[in-house]
Amino acid sequence: MNATLKTFMSEKRKWFDTQLSLIFQDAPITPKLKQAMRYSLEAGGKRIRPILIFATLNMLGKNENLGLRTAIGLEMIHTYSLIHDDLPAMDNDDLRRGKPTNHCVFGEATAILAGDGLLTSAFQIIAEDRMLELETRTEMISLLASAAGPEGMVGGQEDDIEAEEKTLSLQDLILVHRRKTGKLLRFPVEAAAVIAKVEKEIYSTLVRYAEHLGLAFQIGDDILDIVGDEKKLGKPIGSDVANHKNTYVSLLGMTGAKEKLSQEIYAAIEQLKRINCESSLLNDLALYLLERTH
Amino acid sequence: MNATLKTFMSEKRKWFDTQLSLIFQDAPITPKLKQAMRYSLEAGGKRIRPILIFATLNMLGKNENLGLRTAIGLEMIHTYSLIHDDLPAMDNDDLRRGKPTNHCVFGEATAILAGDGLLTSAFQIIAEDRMLELETRTEMISLLASAAGPEGMVGGQEDDIEAEEKTLSLQDLILVHRRKTGKLLRFPVEAAAVIAKVEKEIYSTLVRYAEHLGLAFQIGDDILDIVGDEKKLGKPIGSDVANHKNTYVSLLGMTGAKEKLSQEIYAAIEQLKRINCESSLLNDLALYLLERTH
Repeated sequence: MNATLKTFMSEKRKWFDTQLSLIFQDAPITPKLKQAMRYSLEAGGKRIRPILIFATLNMLGKNENLGLRTAIGLEMIHTYSLIHDDLPAMDNDDLRRGKPTNHCVFGEATAILAGDGLLTSAFQIIAEDRMLELETRTEMISLLASAAGPEGMVGGQEDDIEAEEKTLSLQDLILVHRRKTGKLLRFPVEAAAVIAKVEKEIYSTLVRYAEHLGLAFQIGDDILDIVGDEKKLGKPIGSDVANHKNTYVSLLGMTGAKEKLSQEIYAAIEQLKRINCESSLLNDLALYLLERTH
Repeated sequence: MNATLKTFMSEKRKWFDTQLSLIFQDAPITPKLKQAMRYSLEAGGKRIRPILIFATLNMLGKNENLGLRTAIGLEMIHTYSLIHDDLPAMDNDDLRRGKPTNHCVFGEATAILAGDGLLTSAFQIIAEDRMLELETRTEMISLLASAAGPEGMVGGQEDDIEAEEKTLSLQDLILVHRRKTGKLLRFPVEAAAVIAKVEKEIYSTLVRYAEHLGLAFQIGDDILDIVGDEKKLGKPIGSDVANHKNTYVSLLGMTGAKEKLSQEIYAAIEQLKRINCESSLLNDLALYLLERTH
């Protein structure tokens, strides 16, 4: 990974993780529930979504502080989706980020409630974000709910479940993933664009960058589920095959999937050239997603 | 029930149900997920929370239209909480509002997602409510999330689960219920007060009314779980005893619980006298809660 990006990621991640750990520290929440929420929220992970907010704000010449609470809300929603996705009634996974999944530690009922709690708090944190104007807050909540809700991630998860017994076309698989993982990876770039109040044209260009990046991210995950290192990933590989999931690898083969990944990354980078800003962070972030599968 | 209240409730409920049925009608949501969300959302119920918003707005001389989208968001959150509460990992109930519970019809995975989807959409609907000023929207989202989240309802549900094996004191039981059901019954009165921008003192008085009402509502539910009519309730009675739940009846006996219910109702009504407004709707609503257990 490029040295500048590496420093940026590690510094922002450390800062973000510290801020995140303070959020519920003194909140009057039943101990076991608070523990369950914090267990998954503070389990680490790459924090790729928050980093995307900070990197885009940086590129647009804005203080990264302005995106902090939005980033925390977004990470809460990402985390809740993992907790619910891992439940026995869903993917039934035991391991996540190298640790036993939430329901394995706290039981199913508390895991469901911890997810519900994180999802609810995410919107509260943005509604109360005094760093942002009122109009920015309502727009942010609307965007985030749209990306995470039934027209976005939750809908994509339902599609994904229903697709388990079918073989999808490449077109259909892309549609499922655009909702299931794409919209929540597109949101951070949009969030930064909303905070920076960019012109319409730059907004659309950034959204196209994020859409290519999001698709590449999913293809990368599919590849890593076969050739990845369990220790690095923090979860067992091969679960897609075991769950009869449609993946880019099952549809295109390993070579085809890697080719498609590479296409998407370069399509993302191509978009950045249209914006008259120093965009090396977003450029290198895209290249990093390519790198991690090689 | 008082004739004026009866007309008000039946008219507002009809209006609300019609508006509610339009919300997801044309939304681009995966068919099965949309069906699952609408199944529980449109299963009826007394719509007591929306009615409380409308009745309070009416008392404060405001158009009830101003509270419509907040009422829809609130009912979505109430509905999601019922769907998740009925899951096998939680209360494992088969019947709700006279119909099979969500997971019995659509399966556990889709029921979890339908709940997640309703919870997420609730905030979107308020964030996009053009009838309200931006400041009112952010305050509303903050209030609702606080009432529904880990410091409110979700926390109360966790408390409730943990209390199943213990015998609570009356004081502790009241604390659990203040969060589990109280905060979401207090919210509609607060929401109307926020929309009407009432003075601090009236706000506090209304909140006290709502807190007594919320407690009375829960005591009433506990009583009805023993002496209620299964057909009218739409769910089997006796489930509290079967689940070893702490209830006001188990702690105070039936006579004691009815006495406490009556005390709370008259304490609620007492608050209304402090406000210089025509408050007969809220007055009669309180009396109705007393009536339904007799």
